[in-house]
Amino acid sequence: MGRWEPNARGRLEEAALELFGERGYEQTTVAEIARRAGLTERTFFRHFADKREVLFGGSTLLHERLTEAVAAAPEPVAPMAAIAAALDVAGVILQERRERARRRQAVVLAHAELRERELIKLASLSAALAGALRERGVPEPAASLAAEAGMAVFRVAFERWADDPACDADLREVMRATMTELRSVTAGSPTPADPP
Amino acid sequence: MGRWEPNARGRLEEAALELFGERGYEQTTVAEIARRAGLTERTFFRHFADKREVLFGGSTLLHERLTEAVAAAPEPVAPMAAIAAALDVAGVILQERRERARRRQAVVLAHAELRERELIKLASLSAALAGALRERGVPEPAASLAAEAGMAVFRVAFERWADDPACDADLREVMRATMTELRSVTAGSPTPADPP
Repeated sequence: MGRWEPNARGRLEEAALELFGERGYEQTTVAEIARRAGLTERTFFRHFADKREVLFGGSTLLHERLTEAVAAAPEPVAPMAAIAAALDVAGVILQERRERARRRQAVVLAHAELRERELIKLASLSAALAGALRERGVPEPAASLAAEAGMAVFRVAFERWADDPACDADLREVMRATMTELRSVTAGSPTPADPP
Repeated sequence: MGRWEPNARGRLEEAALELFGERGYEQTTVAEIARRAGLTERTFFRHFADKREVLFGGSTLLHERLTEAVAAAPEPVAPMAAIAAALDVAGVILQERRERARRRQAVVLAHAELRERELIKLASLSAALAGALRERGVPEPAASLAAEAGMAVFRVAFERWADDPACDADLREVMRATMTELRSVTAGSPTPADPP
């Protein structure tokens, strides 16, 4: 029972998404997820605190990789360029998991409790990215604004990509196009002293 | 007991903030809030569903006023200009309630549950502002990006203002300065095709 199970985490995530899709999130139990993955409940709880966390395990990976990307941005650090590099990384990671990411998104959107959890995870990612920028010497409020603007691009681009009916868009490209859109939208704002 | 109480809502909010400051959010009961306000528990529950909601009653007002500001923005609608007009309104409303807003912020920041509630309220405000822009004919993703960028400015500016030790900054001015910062931060991002 306590033996090492190859890719237990991934198998549990896959089984959970299958079951959430088939019979609904509320109706699925941890026991069923474990059974579908060919694992025990005990193995489940070695990897996830509860049923909800199966959907959010990936955010730890994103958190790590994105802050690493900001830390690795070349000197001198242009805050939005460092954030764009992090979004490129997110685009590649999620593109590789496209089917899983889309199914997960459908489950999360359908449940207020999960949408709230997602908001919290994204807010914590934004805070981590701002922290990584400050580590690189970017002052406030530029660090927080760049991180928040990056999360705005992330959210909007991810939704466009997840909703794409043709299903052939590349997330990194959608992120880049959305970043360009953000730049043009913000540039269009007249300063208070300017005529509109 | 069921009689009309002048400004019961405001008195309850004020009493709650006093008590949260004096003895802590968890340690304060609805009965104590009502007593401090010189009102009954019954009156409390006519205005608020629970203790937590005393802190979030104001967000309904913000929600209404900000979407109205977007709806009233002059033609042709420049999305960020409409959002900037909404932020001006938020700046004026919160500046008038400065002391209360700062005390409220201290309570919210100290409790994970309240921080989460705040995130949810701000996400719903962002969605409402994007909706108001779409009503005015702004296409996606510009509508969502402008709304999200506006919320980024709101969050960062509000924090700067609430943390200002001298306590003499004007929130509308801080919002405008932060908007200018956002424009400069996003403009600094090289497009993928550009050299950095």
